[in-house]
Amino acid sequence: MRIAIDTMGGDFGPRATLRGTASALLRDPRLSATLVGPGHLLDAELDSLPASLSRVRDRLQTLAVDGIVASDARPSRVVRSREPSSMSRALDLVASGQADACVSAGNTGALMALAMRDVGTVEGVERPAICAAVPTQGERSCSLLDLGANVAVAPQHLLAFARMGAVRCQLVEGVTNPRVGLLNVGVESGKGTAQVQEAHALLAGSGANFDYLGFVEGGDLFAGEVDVVVCDGFVGNVVLKSSEGLAQMLSAQLGATLAADWRTRLMAWLARPALTRLSRQLDPVRYNGASLLGVAGVVVKSHGGAAAEGFAYAVSRAASEARRGLPERLAHALKGSLPG
Amino acid sequence: MRIAIDTMGGDFGPRATLRGTASALLRDPRLSATLVGPGHLLDAELDSLPASLSRVRDRLQTLAVDGIVASDARPSRVVRSREPSSMSRALDLVASGQADACVSAGNTGALMALAMRDVGTVEGVERPAICAAVPTQGERSCSLLDLGANVAVAPQHLLAFARMGAVRCQLVEGVTNPRVGLLNVGVESGKGTAQVQEAHALLAGSGANFDYLGFVEGGDLFAGEVDVVVCDGFVGNVVLKSSEGLAQMLSAQLGATLAADWRTRLMAWLARPALTRLSRQLDPVRYNGASLLGVAGVVVKSHGGAAAEGFAYAVSRAASEARRGLPERLAHALKGSLPG
Repeated sequence: MRIAIDTMGGDFGPRATLRGTASALLRDPRLSATLVGPGHLLDAELDSLPASLSRVRDRLQTLAVDGIVASDARPSRVVRSREPSSMSRALDLVASGQADACVSAGNTGALMALAMRDVGTVEGVERPAICAAVPTQGERSCSLLDLGANVAVAPQHLLAFARMGAVRCQLVEGVTNPRVGLLNVGVESGKGTAQVQEAHALLAGSGANFDYLGFVEGGDLFAGEVDVVVCDGFVGNVVLKSSEGLAQMLSAQLGATLAADWRTRLMAWLARPALTRLSRQLDPVRYNGASLLGVAGVVVKSHGGAAAEGFAYAVSRAASEARRGLPERLAHALKGSLPG
Repeated sequence: MRIAIDTMGGDFGPRATLRGTASALLRDPRLSATLVGPGHLLDAELDSLPASLSRVRDRLQTLAVDGIVASDARPSRVVRSREPSSMSRALDLVASGQADACVSAGNTGALMALAMRDVGTVEGVERPAICAAVPTQGERSCSLLDLGANVAVAPQHLLAFARMGAVRCQLVEGVTNPRVGLLNVGVESGKGTAQVQEAHALLAGSGANFDYLGFVEGGDLFAGEVDVVVCDGFVGNVVLKSSEGLAQMLSAQLGATLAADWRTRLMAWLARPALTRLSRQLDPVRYNGASLLGVAGVVVKSHGGAAAEGFAYAVSRAASEARRGLPERLAHALKGSLPG
């Protein structure tokens, strides 16, 4: 199992992506990786790997490419330019079968556009979607899609998102009969836009192999009673980013509370291990990757603000999806359900 | 200054609304209230007011009405039925000038629909919007609208929401030149739907008396660098409810973390006052009211899950808006800016 790594994306540069990759390899002895990026940077980072990580050195290959996709580049321009970059070459490795999956912390729009162009889409998928998990009060996380690949969608796309999210949830998360909800402003029938009303009718009549719960509200995302929630990419993107912003603010407030006086400082010192666990939960998004569902190969986006540890999770996520043959299973599941 | 109170809305019934109202009156000696609801319930609650609150007894009037708007009633049906209810009678008091503002913790859709029918809308306002504040890392909170009155809007409505939000922010929050943002999936031009693109053009060319920042993302809501954020009611509703759900989950996790072992239990005991302050910040929405902006009288919705303290904040918010003549100022500000 080989993962192609775009080492040049993200806020922390190749050190974070490289060390994150090495951490993932350390945890999973069957994994190897091809690091794609400027040769001199990769060599320098490989030479400075901490001893604990250098044990995986023989499972790390490099592929030297100098070009970089800027984080603010327009996806349409990136696709047109055809300049080689660490991102495009990492995707090429998947397209050509030299790698089983690709992970990047770079420009999401460019990653999706290049993946659709070079890796292609699963048969029957008009619109791939970005899917990530949020933590919940229940035992399992909740998958949310689309997170921004499609700012405007038709009702049948929401149905396709539900099918794709459910297949991933079954296959990768091991949930037999995933509970799927359609995000809306209320749970009562008649609520919401014409778009969600039509999507609701499609979902209710789809006879799908998941448990369709009907409408769910924003608060249900974190309650642990739904496994997959679908929405258009505008809503999903805003919800994910606002949740991230809120978690950061509350984390900062918790820090300020703990630093307030001797009692709270003592408490912070006593409870450091517990609080470290909590602060990881407080920032769910950085500690997961997002899957580009519906692309004809496994492509995972790591959060741009993820340090090495977050990137390692994204690599592990990509390995899980590739091992289970997610794109092939999506193709199989969607084939039986296409209109016409 | 007299506030009409729909005592029968919300999850905690007339005890919470009545004690919340009494708390607000205790803090503000110039305030009086008319409590609207079933006579026997109001009398029982007034008789059982704690001694600390009974000092405001002479500023509390009652208006006996037996009807109640169910929390799951369809707004269109409520409007058509014309049955008297605690909600409709409280609004009548505003419409007839017998009260300066109305506060309800009941069915939001019904409150908006009845307010539009009976109190009417400010001249020049096609679509009133629901506006509430979220806490931020900065010095001031951020006002977000629309929170669900309008699930689908045209670009000119987003412009009107910006104007209304800015007027309220200047008048009630005292911010001289409010910074206004348009919620989108990215800050770069070209991002988002045709709708936000058109609204962006309108806002950029509006020559308004606020500082238009352009597009903002979900995470910016809590960063403290924007005072008013506008979006359609679908997005706003989902963002607000998901933020609320996330805050509740994190609050529960913090509680579980603190109860984990002797070190953390000791720490929780030592730091109880600081943690109590924090948990209030963790649940921002319950501790504010939401304004029905664009209605021709002050109407404030308190969170259905708000206990007495949260309801008291909503009453104070209503009093502030009424004292500053918000509806009249909105009418004045919008008159100069109508197209045609």
